[in-house]
Amino acid sequence: MNCTLSFLDMYNKQIFSNKTGMMPMKRKCPLIEFKSRKGVDNKLKIVFEFDLMRHDWNNTYDPLRNDLARLQADGTNSDVVLKTPTREFKAHKLILSCRSPVFAAMFNHDTREQNENVVQIMDISDDVLEQLLAFIYTDLVPRLHEMTIDLLIVADKYDIKALKSRCESCIFDTVTIQNATELLLTADRANATKLRTNIKQFIIRRRGEFIRSNDYQELRRSHPELILEIFEQPTND
Amino acid sequence: MNCTLSFLDMYNKQIFSNKTGMMPMKRKCPLIEFKSRKGVDNKLKIVFEFDLMRHDWNNTYDPLRNDLARLQADGTNSDVVLKTPTREFKAHKLILSCRSPVFAAMFNHDTREQNENVVQIMDISDDVLEQLLAFIYTDLVPRLHEMTIDLLIVADKYDIKALKSRCESCIFDTVTIQNATELLLTADRANATKLRTNIKQFIIRRRGEFIRSNDYQELRRSHPELILEIFEQPTND
Repeated sequence: MNCTLSFLDMYNKQIFSNKTGMMPMKRKCPLIEFKSRKGVDNKLKIVFEFDLMRHDWNNTYDPLRNDLARLQADGTNSDVVLKTPTREFKAHKLILSCRSPVFAAMFNHDTREQNENVVQIMDISDDVLEQLLAFIYTDLVPRLHEMTIDLLIVADKYDIKALKSRCESCIFDTVTIQNATELLLTADRANATKLRTNIKQFIIRRRGEFIRSNDYQELRRSHPELILEIFEQPTND
Repeated sequence: MNCTLSFLDMYNKQIFSNKTGMMPMKRKCPLIEFKSRKGVDNKLKIVFEFDLMRHDWNNTYDPLRNDLARLQADGTNSDVVLKTPTREFKAHKLILSCRSPVFAAMFNHDTREQNENVVQIMDISDDVLEQLLAFIYTDLVPRLHEMTIDLLIVADKYDIKALKSRCESCIFDTVTIQNATELLLTADRANATKLRTNIKQFIIRRRGEFIRSNDYQELRRSHPELILEIFEQPTND
């Protein structure tokens, strides 16, 4: 967060402004300087302006993330390769294990992957795997919004709870009555219980609209138990 | 950042308040509900309250940091031990190398440390080493303020620029005319050029006070070239 401190005089004229950075400058208090210079002794407005720095997942000022991103990009000391049908990604067993219980189990037992230092990955596109690795090394997922559902499924597969939760939150932001049932089925498929609960709450709050929607009759036929489950739950309005 | 949204009526009475979390709740706009319920059509005050979450280095909501902190605490898959006269710290060559060029050089060559998987550390106290490792694994230094100068020297030794910069900034916050020369010599010893420059600027802005201070005569005798260097530099007031 950056902060600008300004002093305004009684006419709202700015008499001092200072943008503080990470390392504060030591200097005489500007207020005292002003008073002794101009002799104004009341009606001084002190204004703090804050530049809010969102807790931005793509914020790059972060030495640990930078170092790990570099480690991944360079592949220095890499000891395993993730192989898709079209690409190879160098990686580090230590980092993969530390971030995913599924990788940990794979590399801590006498598996083919552990012995051959190769993990064959046939069910994840290169783009999605790239984002998965970005998250594993840095907590950042630059293209999260482009492929949230794929990432949710991958996060579930490798049991990476933090990524899963991020995807769930991101998907819930896009829920409408039109896509609610589709997303509910996706949540089911990815064992995304938090997302599932939230979508059900969303639907029940807009029950009338939901029943009149295009998908409803189809869903009623294909998943009657799901409809019942939605209707049975308490509302929290 | 948490945000509370409140609506107040013309008498400043709160008629609605909602604290939004990470996952926004989808619900009808409360303003519309209020208007249709009470028929008030003007003098509505909308208040946003922000809970600022400082970009806090000790903030623990951070999956990557949590996972790496756990890795360090458990010593899982540890492949090297840092040995002081009184304690042993399990660590990982990959993480140490990725964070410090000095460790990287040590483990990427045919050194005794690389072959024996032990690094003997005789010149760093257990407490300081513990904080150094905390930084290496998580970017966090919980006890930074207690041992800033020791950490600055260690950060210089292992060439960890981000930690060094954090220490420099933290030390500069404590500069006074009384301790300025001592801290300047510390900055010299730790090759802390940014801190050095800032302290010199600080002294030159308060030149009169500095010359009258207790240490001045002593410093003039022991480090005349340093005094000249300070006096020769341009001021930026």
